[in-house]
Amino acid sequence: MTSSLDWIRDAAAAREKAGLVRRVSAYRPGDVVDLAGNDYLGLRQHPAVKDAATAAVETYGTGAGASRLVTGTLDVHDELEAALVGLTGAPTALVTSSGYTANLSAVSTLADAGTLIVSDEHAHASLIDGCRLSRAAVTVNRHNDLEHVAELLARRDTPRAVVVAESVYSVLGDTAPVEDLVALTAESGAILVLDEAHALGVLGPGGAGLASAAGAWTAEHVVVTGTLSKSFAAQGGVVLAAPVVRDHVVNTARPFVYDTGLAPAAAGAALAAIGVLHDHPELTVRLRANATRLAQACGIEVPDGAVMSVPMPGPHETVEAVARAAEHGVRVGAFRPPSTPDGSSRLRLTAHAHHTDAELDRACTVLAGLVPTPV
Amino acid sequence: MTSSLDWIRDAAAAREKAGLVRRVSAYRPGDVVDLAGNDYLGLRQHPAVKDAATAAVETYGTGAGASRLVTGTLDVHDELEAALVGLTGAPTALVTSSGYTANLSAVSTLADAGTLIVSDEHAHASLIDGCRLSRAAVTVNRHNDLEHVAELLARRDTPRAVVVAESVYSVLGDTAPVEDLVALTAESGAILVLDEAHALGVLGPGGAGLASAAGAWTAEHVVVTGTLSKSFAAQGGVVLAAPVVRDHVVNTARPFVYDTGLAPAAAGAALAAIGVLHDHPELTVRLRANATRLAQACGIEVPDGAVMSVPMPGPHETVEAVARAAEHGVRVGAFRPPSTPDGSSRLRLTAHAHHTDAELDRACTVLAGLVPTPV
Ligand SMILES: Cc1ncc(COP(=O)(O)O)c(C=O)c1O
Ligand SMILES: Cc1ncc(COP(=O)(O)O)c(C=O)c1O
Repeated sequence: MTSSLDWIRDAAAAREKAGLVRRVSAYRPGDVVDLAGNDYLGLRQHPAVKDAATAAVETYGTGAGASRLVTGTLDVHDELEAALVGLTGAPTALVTSSGYTANLSAVSTLADAGTLIVSDEHAHASLIDGCRLSRAAVTVNRHNDLEHVAELLARRDTPRAVVVAESVYSVLGDTAPVEDLVALTAESGAILVLDEAHALGVLGPGGAGLASAAGAWTAEHVVVTGTLSKSFAAQGGVVLAAPVVRDHVVNTARPFVYDTGLAPAAAGAALAAIGVLHDHPELTVRLRANATRLAQACGIEVPDGAVMSVPMPGPHETVEAVARAAEHGVRVGAFRPPSTPDGSSRLRLTAHAHHTDAELDRACTVLAGLVPTPV
Repeated sequence: MTSSLDWIRDAAAAREKAGLVRRVSAYRPGDVVDLAGNDYLGLRQHPAVKDAATAAVETYGTGAGASRLVTGTLDVHDELEAALVGLTGAPTALVTSSGYTANLSAVSTLADAGTLIVSDEHAHASLIDGCRLSRAAVTVNRHNDLEHVAELLARRDTPRAVVVAESVYSVLGDTAPVEDLVALTAESGAILVLDEAHALGVLGPGGAGLASAAGAWTAEHVVVTGTLSKSFAAQGGVVLAAPVVRDHVVNTARPFVYDTGLAPAAAGAALAAIGVLHDHPELTVRLRANATRLAQACGIEVPDGAVMSVPMPGPHETVEAVARAAEHGVRVGAFRPPSTPDGSSRLRLTAHAHHTDAELDRACTVLAGLVPTPV
């Protein structure tokens, strides 16, 4: 009798051989400039945000204790949803336990067996998993190719369609043509699910995201998902949508209905982070300036958002560059196959609003010595 | 042009007509005995657990800031994983952002296209979604019917198999024959994925769960999933497994790899909750006693764990009973179709270790007047 674990052992051996083993090990910031995480506004350590997390623990305890539909919705969830509506101008907000489950909840329930999903080829894993959980047919459009999206929508033989995109793509950091996507989906009678994980708190008026910037909220067919774990310095996710969509997710999304509500500390922290952003619009300005400096040091185009992607010759050079940066106190991310949508290897850098000029000087010097010289 | 939102509006109208609309509204405990949540040990408000959440915020900030694989693994995650290993005796632990994503991560990656998944018909939504995300063929066994599981395993034409079960089922509260499942899967060369969301902190030696009680950890083919949001009073999930399985999940589970690490406050709280449980084994004894009293008041069999299910004549009677209990300061849950695996309507009650005798007296009096008289 062979064991069902054998293929797992074989897969482990293959990863080892290919030099593609991933490990989880504790990160101790110390004197490091972190350009790998997604705490874009640097609010994880902000005193008001920490105090709010602590106050929420004091008021509500350490967990929500139940599904949002049972006794797991707390006043702090309502307040957070109101703040997200206030920030973005969306008609309603629904807070979930993570950005991952926000995408699963939205995508899996907005498409049914009579729906074609057209999903961008660079879509995040959580969007892809949401597509898989739906009963819809799924087709992939060439990255950011609006004509291809239009063609796939026009050719469909299903009565309904959902287009899946990100306003800022998580790996390459480029932005989607949001205004055009809103218009195209409106014309085609499709729903647009737009993941703004890397745009909320970063882009749009006051960090309101690109759907807001595009004036999309007059249209019922636009559904935005987001995370509370990046700019908002906590954990959790959000679905921003028309009331009919929110009700639909509340009633039918298994990853929402059968999941414990977001912990009070995370909800309180995210709420406070939105408040800090509101009171300090200069944070997004500073973030832009820092992104510009880093991009210039790496010889790449200045990104629209905070995510930068530096092409590297291969996976080994990438790993080597990450290690040498770390030796010099600069932490950057690496994307190697199979994490990159196009199979290439890249350094992934993120700009942060709270990095000081001295930290940026150090980071820029180190990076300039590591990345391939621009031609 | 019809809109892709039309079917969503139709679905809303149908729910309204059937009286099956769910709403999220804030729960304010006040002077209420909460028999609806899953804070089994009552540790959400425990001073040591709250202090630990606050201390974690102080030390690490309000969010993990990145995926566990980037810079989102913190010392508190390592400590929490060690504590979970200590509690359960499992070889390794991997902490995830929720119990939901723990199940998605484990089930979706342990089964491939050459695998048959045999899943209990009462399996939780998160297990079912994990099955859907895998590339495996899925078949459902009659609830807790070991012979049926054996038959389905024997009949399979795939080289590999995974059996999916819960040690305590979330709706009915009954337990699985864990020892037999461990033996059967060993004999059949299958992997057993056992969800202990409602057993950790409740059953087994010191709350170690039923896999531990069954001495399952000598076998590499047993994978336990759990949540930190119930007995452990926080948020998050865990996969308990042999090192080869943990490595496999770390390397291949999209809902782990592409998800931000668990927030420090939740990790700190869960860690402290495990400590409180360790120092106060009387908590599980008290929980048992309270479950016994509640079951007797409702005229049902005493459950193995903390979850009780009281059959009701129909959905309307169920809603009515929940409302009348609430008027009398007792909060109970309701399961109506489509939430119940067998289409019936039930009250769902959970026992808690921290309820006082006075609170239980009140709850028992109210419940005895609401549930159908036992025959
Ligand atoms: C584009 C995108 N969507 C969704 C998520 C998931 O959010 P979370 O980490 O809060 O689960 C991420 C990253 O984590 C992301 O990059
Ligand atoms: C059996 C079972 N598994 C998994 C989960 C999911 O856990 P979490 O709420 O932490 O996501 C739940 C309930 O919430 C559950 O009842």
